[in-house]
Amino acid sequence: MKIGLDIMGGDYAPKATVLGAIAAHQNLSKDQNLVLFGDKEQITPILAEHNFNPDHFEYVQTTEVIGMGEHPTKAIVQKANSSISVGFQQLKEGKIDSFASAGNTGAMLVGAMFSVKAIPGVLRPAISTIIPKLKGGFKIMLDAGANADCKPEHLVQFSILGSLYAKHVYQIAEPQVGLMNLGEEAEKGSLLTQTTYPLLKENSLINFFGNLEGRDLFNEKADVIVCDGFTGNIMLKLAESFYVLTLKKGIKDEFFDRFNYEQYGGSPILGVNAPVIIGHGISSPEAIKNMILQSKSMIESQVIEKFKTAFSS
Amino acid sequence: MKIGLDIMGGDYAPKATVLGAIAAHQNLSKDQNLVLFGDKEQITPILAEHNFNPDHFEYVQTTEVIGMGEHPTKAIVQKANSSISVGFQQLKEGKIDSFASAGNTGAMLVGAMFSVKAIPGVLRPAISTIIPKLKGGFKIMLDAGANADCKPEHLVQFSILGSLYAKHVYQIAEPQVGLMNLGEEAEKGSLLTQTTYPLLKENSLINFFGNLEGRDLFNEKADVIVCDGFTGNIMLKLAESFYVLTLKKGIKDEFFDRFNYEQYGGSPILGVNAPVIIGHGISSPEAIKNMILQSKSMIESQVIEKFKTAFSS
Repeated sequence: MKIGLDIMGGDYAPKATVLGAIAAHQNLSKDQNLVLFGDKEQITPILAEHNFNPDHFEYVQTTEVIGMGEHPTKAIVQKANSSISVGFQQLKEGKIDSFASAGNTGAMLVGAMFSVKAIPGVLRPAISTIIPKLKGGFKIMLDAGANADCKPEHLVQFSILGSLYAKHVYQIAEPQVGLMNLGEEAEKGSLLTQTTYPLLKENSLINFFGNLEGRDLFNEKADVIVCDGFTGNIMLKLAESFYVLTLKKGIKDEFFDRFNYEQYGGSPILGVNAPVIIGHGISSPEAIKNMILQSKSMIESQVIEKFKTAFSS
Repeated sequence: MKIGLDIMGGDYAPKATVLGAIAAHQNLSKDQNLVLFGDKEQITPILAEHNFNPDHFEYVQTTEVIGMGEHPTKAIVQKANSSISVGFQQLKEGKIDSFASAGNTGAMLVGAMFSVKAIPGVLRPAISTIIPKLKGGFKIMLDAGANADCKPEHLVQFSILGSLYAKHVYQIAEPQVGLMNLGEEAEKGSLLTQTTYPLLKENSLINFFGNLEGRDLFNEKADVIVCDGFTGNIMLKLAESFYVLTLKKGIKDEFFDRFNYEQYGGSPILGVNAPVIIGHGISSPEAIKNMILQSKSMIESQVIEKFKTAFSS
């Protein structure tokens, strides 16, 4: 198994990414190799400083970096020797089994779509994220921002992707799918959610819970929350701002602790032909480590194969 | 001035509504009269219990009540002698200057649209709500749920309504309007927000701040948050669930205290030809009192006239 990591991506790269890779190494077996994409010259002193044997990793030398503010499509095309571009190239060629980066989110999305591409039958891959449940455990929410405008058939596909991901990667048996909406009743909602409701209800691949409201984000209702990327992005950033607020105010609480994105790694793009994970820009070594372990789980679970089977029928 | 109040609306009516009316009475001058709509027989013992002179209020006897779960349009038509129906009838006839209820939200919306109707030029009245700012003061957010699907011209109108409301009722000078979106950059967003952005920027009635993200709900950015009713409803319920969570966890904090909706009264429907306020179903006497004082402020500010002037040109 070869787990690809962009060592140049993220606000604290390459230091945070290298330290994350070192930390992850302890949790990997001999046949699970980390492949680092970036400028080895910048990495070597960090490894030396931590007395880490550089031979534990594989390296793919790249000379360019896509910045956080760059235009995704332009950058992917123009910076062919960037860590993200080369990473996706190797992912496409099967030289690595997964690719993760805490760099430019848009470039990760575009790179995934251009290289490994959407799984046949999947109309729109989605970014999924983890939401902690109040009483322990968590939910999967998607789309968290890849698709601002969605159609009912997209939300149906997100439901299938989210259910398979919850089941195979997080061992949530028979995950229930909730449709984020402005009321519980079946007839409530926007044109999008009203049209989506019966489609989710009748789909045999989906264990449909019903509608959810904004207040249900963290409670026990449903295991997979489905929404368009506009709504998902706003909810996620609003929830994060609460977590940041509790930190600033010095409020210590077991539940708020579980908000810490560092524990969950990153946000996978579900619906493309390989495991691809986007890390938070501010990823710490702990977050990078968990993103690597999450990559490993996605490979081991063979969730991509489950997706392919579901969408081939 | 005659302030209309539905005494039968809300989960704790008529007790909470009557106690709220009693509390508000202390803050009203002699020419500011409360007109109570409901069953006087149920009210009298509560007033007696609190040694309150019933002559301080005016009464309009109604025999029916629209329940929280009833279908709004059907209920308004079929229950012509309900407190909400009669209240709107009197508001339309100018017998009262404002009408407020903590009852069925849908019936309040339908009642307002059928009776006093939208201000000429206003395409879609919106429900507005108060959001506390972290460093003190607050913002106005609309639409909070009246219109699940919106077009750019609706968001432009919400911006004008929200700005005038913030300025004249809450004395926020030159209120800045922020467009809720999934990124700060002008080109980011859904089709709706992308199309709305230049319209807000070029409109001379609007002091446009730019895009807001979910994490900006409570910070210092902008005074009026504009969004479709689907997004607004989900954000509001998500934010409320955080407040409820801090209460449950016994977290005491000045900022979280300011989340308490009770302090702000209710949510006015902006864009109809009279002040109409919808209270939270769980309204306490304190919330009812503040909804009455909010009605008074709306009447005194002549904000409806400001709306009419803005939309007549």
